[in-house]
Amino acid sequence: MALQERAVRTRRAVLVAAAAVFAEVGYEAATIAEILARAGVTKGALYFHFSSKEELAQAVLAGQLETVPAVPARELLLQQGLDEAFVLAHLLSVGDPLVQGSIRLTVDQGAPTDGLDRRAPMSGWIAHNADLLGRAKERGELLPHVDVAAAARMFVGAFTGVQVLSKIMTGHADLPERVADLQRHLLAGVAVPAVLLQLDTAADRGARVYEEAVKASWPTGQPRVAG
Amino acid sequence: MALQERAVRTRRAVLVAAAAVFAEVGYEAATIAEILARAGVTKGALYFHFSSKEELAQAVLAGQLETVPAVPARELLLQQGLDEAFVLAHLLSVGDPLVQGSIRLTVDQGAPTDGLDRRAPMSGWIAHNADLLGRAKERGELLPHVDVAAAARMFVGAFTGVQVLSKIMTGHADLPERVADLQRHLLAGVAVPAVLLQLDTAADRGARVYEEAVKASWPTGQPRVAG
Repeated sequence: MALQERAVRTRRAVLVAAAAVFAEVGYEAATIAEILARAGVTKGALYFHFSSKEELAQAVLAGQLETVPAVPARELLLQQGLDEAFVLAHLLSVGDPLVQGSIRLTVDQGAPTDGLDRRAPMSGWIAHNADLLGRAKERGELLPHVDVAAAARMFVGAFTGVQVLSKIMTGHADLPERVADLQRHLLAGVAVPAVLLQLDTAADRGARVYEEAVKASWPTGQPRVAG
Repeated sequence: MALQERAVRTRRAVLVAAAAVFAEVGYEAATIAEILARAGVTKGALYFHFSSKEELAQAVLAGQLETVPAVPARELLLQQGLDEAFVLAHLLSVGDPLVQGSIRLTVDQGAPTDGLDRRAPMSGWIAHNADLLGRAKERGELLPHVDVAAAARMFVGAFTGVQVLSKIMTGHADLPERVADLQRHLLAGVAVPAVLLQLDTAADRGARVYEEAVKASWPTGQPRVAG
């Protein structure tokens, strides 16, 4: 294995281990010792890539959007956005450590002084959704009155809460079904009827699209850790 | 002041102080010493009412629904439910310590071993909303296809996330507006058109209804701490 490839793998192993520890105990209670034990790397290897627990957390937060594999392009942009939400719900429900850790770091309020940038992933999701909804509107998929910026915020906020509630009540087991419910309700208020009719909002869609996305990105894509 | 009244006031001062500390630093970092300093009561007085930090947190969590004053009855039940959401958003946006502390305790995942019952407040909100939506359906305010149990979960989940996002992005400053957006979208999918037309979903409604609710409960109601 080339030196560079080994470094990439080590960095990834450390990130996944850190994310898993953050997911389980949160930022404050997480320790470098526990992350080292999970990653199975030396202290030197970890500190070669990350200088502190804070840097590890920032890297987990910064990579949040990329933890969701690109879903195949769809004729309807609203189906594409829907598919992204379903894949994210799928990864949470099967316990993907990077997604779970990153989302816990975002949602837990943390100490006022912990310095973690929780806005970056949220701003990223909002911008991504605003772009997708904006293009959907240009193509005539949205009702004319829809305020794209407000709708993007609403989709991101509502998804966030539905996953918080599902985590509390069922450990994310019912998340795909809850996200399907939410999307059906929200889309009914923004999409034109002819588009609504064509959308697949079945709760098992996340698992199907995830398989499709992984196959499509192989062999260039990063292999996923869980799922 | 009668002894009993003094005990009630002390208990409340301790609860409010604890909630404020939980809101600021979270459950794990909160200390009894800090809560004592805020409450301005003796250690003996605190321990007379609460035996531990955990008991304080459970009391803050258990009182979550009651921290929102009863809104005046409305002709339309959907307006009443809407008003409750707006008042909750108002209390969060003005920094009410009981509401902020209780909701932070619910949303922060915490340590797997902290033993806090985060399901109780969520179950309470879901049951309350299911009851209100069920009665609204009987009165013909809802579209016939609406699944009341699923809709109640969706309203609670979506509200939770919109407040998490608003907290991260604006420290809750834009929450009334975000809740108005969310409610307009969600209600459009569940209410019959004739009811939709009559609903007041203005973002400043929370402040107005809060004043009304406080006046209506005076002098028997508990005076609020903030707002």
